[in-house]
Amino acid sequence: MRKRFTILVLAAIAAWAGEIPAGQLKLFAPLPEAPKADAALVELGRRLYFEGRLSKDGKVSCNTCHPLDKAGADGQATSAGVGGKRGARNSPTVLNAALHVAQFWDGRAADVEAQAQGPVLNPVEMAMADARAVQAALRAAPEYGPLFAKAFPKDREPVTLENAARAIGAFERQLLTPSRWDRFLKGDSKALNEAEKAGFQQFLAAGCAFCHRGALLGGTSYQKLGMSKPYAASKDEGRAAVTKQAADRGFFKVPSLRNVARTGPYLHDGSVASLEEAIRLMAEYQIGTKLTAAEAHSIRVWLEALNGEPPAELLRAPGAGKK
Amino acid sequence: MRKRFTILVLAAIAAWAGEIPAGQLKLFAPLPEAPKADAALVELGRRLYFEGRLSKDGKVSCNTCHPLDKAGADGQATSAGVGGKRGARNSPTVLNAALHVAQFWDGRAADVEAQAQGPVLNPVEMAMADARAVQAALRAAPEYGPLFAKAFPKDREPVTLENAARAIGAFERQLLTPSRWDRFLKGDSKALNEAEKAGFQQFLAAGCAFCHRGALLGGTSYQKLGMSKPYAASKDEGRAAVTKQAADRGFFKVPSLRNVARTGPYLHDGSVASLEEAIRLMAEYQIGTKLTAAEAHSIRVWLEALNGEPPAELLRAPGAGKK
Repeated sequence: MRKRFTILVLAAIAAWAGEIPAGQLKLFAPLPEAPKADAALVELGRRLYFEGRLSKDGKVSCNTCHPLDKAGADGQATSAGVGGKRGARNSPTVLNAALHVAQFWDGRAADVEAQAQGPVLNPVEMAMADARAVQAALRAAPEYGPLFAKAFPKDREPVTLENAARAIGAFERQLLTPSRWDRFLKGDSKALNEAEKAGFQQFLAAGCAFCHRGALLGGTSYQKLGMSKPYAASKDEGRAAVTKQAADRGFFKVPSLRNVARTGPYLHDGSVASLEEAIRLMAEYQIGTKLTAAEAHSIRVWLEALNGEPPAELLRAPGAGKK
Repeated sequence: MRKRFTILVLAAIAAWAGEIPAGQLKLFAPLPEAPKADAALVELGRRLYFEGRLSKDGKVSCNTCHPLDKAGADGQATSAGVGGKRGARNSPTVLNAALHVAQFWDGRAADVEAQAQGPVLNPVEMAMADARAVQAALRAAPEYGPLFAKAFPKDREPVTLENAARAIGAFERQLLTPSRWDRFLKGDSKALNEAEKAGFQQFLAAGCAFCHRGALLGGTSYQKLGMSKPYAASKDEGRAAVTKQAADRGFFKVPSLRNVARTGPYLHDGSVASLEEAIRLMAEYQIGTKLTAAEAHSIRVWLEALNGEPPAELLRAPGAGKK
């Protein structure tokens, strides 16, 4: 049914393809403002984001696999957790992640607050034994008591894994990256150059916008990897692990294209190193269109206009020894 | 942007409205089979579903607000938790709930396993103090030790809130309700009578299928209550509580229409008692179409063909004194 609905909407998009770009632009939206948030909560979240004590060996922090000085992703196919262990999936960028419909490649956490607990307790990531061990580690660090108390003034026992995850989530919700693309969407037609505009037209003509739409150019739906043509490399059951439905096997959350030029390698398993190759693979296996190298290059030129940075003051690591 | 995309797709659907029903039928799908699951896990989940010990006063179970002998919903606008306290939202039916894209009206839990922890700890629902209190209550009941051990044979300490929620989730994933509608979708054109088919055509013609589509006829997207015309009665911020985005204020998960004729009252706050009134309100405020009483009645006639029952053996309460 999903596939058929896809075809329906692709047909609708195709029917619009001869229209003025204004019609197609409606599929997209500028990034919203970051939500207003309590400064003490965000500051606690920022410190915790860089906090190695949230891992069993004291060395792995959120920033290890999602480094903020590298567009929020570590550039590896899969990331090394405690003891160098690696999972099966690529670490996606934390930038703009809060705006995804759900978290993780399979959507198994509803929001960034729920997500933030996952890696802390995952044995191949930060490998803490349980919530109590996290609580003990944070209580042993004297600076955190007052910070948690300030961020959670109503709580009798504020230092908990759950509150740590809330704070990290609140911090992550601030990590939005407005770009030239947003200025373009808001009406500044000069914010993109001609080569970038041509790349965007190429992206539209290929049909990429069915999945990569909205404020994130993705992050709104789950789609089957190999929608148009079976993608042999995929053994990960994907979304089916969450829904327990065979029909969802091989479905993944569509990633955002914001900062995509800086957050390779690509796909859920990080198996594709080159962005232009990823563009051509997606066109072939998702849409059934073969793009030339020149067409893929043109799309990449536009994608680079989607790069952006969060506010610089959020990206500071909080002092030495805590990476 | 969402609204504009909505208009795009509504236009595509409208363009198809003159077509043979087969085209429109592609927007729907029969219910899948319930997933294969470990019998010990499902049996534990079934017992816990009816277990009052998961609440502070020992009287409120999952089945209190989602009674399986009443189509999985209690028929009240909002439900009474421990001490008669009530929240602001209507208890949706548990039947088929596992197939929704996410759980709760605002999607704040990713799946039924995550959902199941919510009410247990919610002070206006089952009001347990914390996960440890739940663990203590279950450990005090001697019958549960062996049941948890059997369902979670690898766990050293299997009796936990998290495992209880896993078991409840596994049970809930079995609560699917195939109906005459599914037989119709699978090709048995006589599974619906002429009045029901006419109601379905009316539903399509009104444009309801933009939101109410897929295997659940809903449960796949978040939409603004009052998409077409402001709905004054709504003060609930809805999805915005999860996304922290002002643009999501007043958005709710679109409910499934399966068993809708048995699961009133309607809307997120249970403020509408009559199904035909709910149909007319949705047409007016979501689509901008006024339906006559006869048209709303016709749609209701079809909706009753969506009623179904889960396997009877799942619905037994496990003995006296545990409701």
